[in-house]
Amino acid sequence: MDTSDDKKNAAPPTLRPEQDDRRWAGVDLMQYKQEGSAPFRDITRQVLFDDPQLAAQMRYFEMAPGGYSTLERHQHMHAVMILRGHGRCLVGNRVFEVNEHDLVTIPALAWHQFRAPDDAPMGFLCVVNAVRDKPQLPTPADLDALRADAATAAFIRT
Amino acid sequence: MDTSDDKKNAAPPTLRPEQDDRRWAGVDLMQYKQEGSAPFRDITRQVLFDDPQLAAQMRYFEMAPGGYSTLERHQHMHAVMILRGHGRCLVGNRVFEVNEHDLVTIPALAWHQFRAPDDAPMGFLCVVNAVRDKPQLPTPADLDALRADAATAAFIRT
Repeated sequence: MDTSDDKKNAAPPTLRPEQDDRRWAGVDLMQYKQEGSAPFRDITRQVLFDDPQLAAQMRYFEMAPGGYSTLERHQHMHAVMILRGHGRCLVGNRVFEVNEHDLVTIPALAWHQFRAPDDAPMGFLCVVNAVRDKPQLPTPADLDALRADAATAAFIRT
Repeated sequence: MDTSDDKKNAAPPTLRPEQDDRRWAGVDLMQYKQEGSAPFRDITRQVLFDDPQLAAQMRYFEMAPGGYSTLERHQHMHAVMILRGHGRCLVGNRVFEVNEHDLVTIPALAWHQFRAPDDAPMGFLCVVNAVRDKPQLPTPADLDALRADAATAAFIRT
């Protein structure tokens, strides 16, 4: 049967060329998250690899100028490579400058957030386990603790 | 104890910048495989992410001009993104032209081989399950079957 579910679960074609800057043939440009589920700004998601035979997924997230990802944490780790542009990220209690092809490891339960600069987009690959826990948002007490550090306080967007 | 095993298994620093073209801080440039274990030419391996908490590994392979990976197959799938240059690859019984950022899916048991052009390097990211089977090399009968196709016969290096 050729139902939409079958299509969704079908293996991708062998080759999916990049068609435009960080847009791929046959890969849907998706919302980052459900609207209203968590704070974020001007960010899109593309799922590049998601296969029952693969224990991980590879996704590509891109922020427009001034965009940022949700400030969150979770038990699963993130394996990140910056794939477009440059920007900054919070991991744990430190803010890092990041550039194209840099590798970022986000350990279990580390608070993290990515931000594009105001004048250019920034995108990154993110590999995660296919089976993983849901992100946690900071409580007011968590935010107070994060804001005890001046650099972190100036960086985070909530 | 600070043994070399501890170091090997220690979590990487949060940020590992790209230091030179597709070379990363704190990532060893390794041989592709054991010498003599299988046919290949002018190819290096860097393991970018390999963590007990991650169900997959992300590796980066780069071929010098004229280099090629081993013609092989295995049960585990490969999730590939070209990260440097352009070239060609065999997947199954087809030869594809590939360019930077293109995505290549190598299904279970598909014969595959990557080749850089003669005048430039080509590199690719490859995500695989952390637990996986060993590659199989083609038997003489497998090679005869592959060479029944003229384009494949012209492409493969053994």
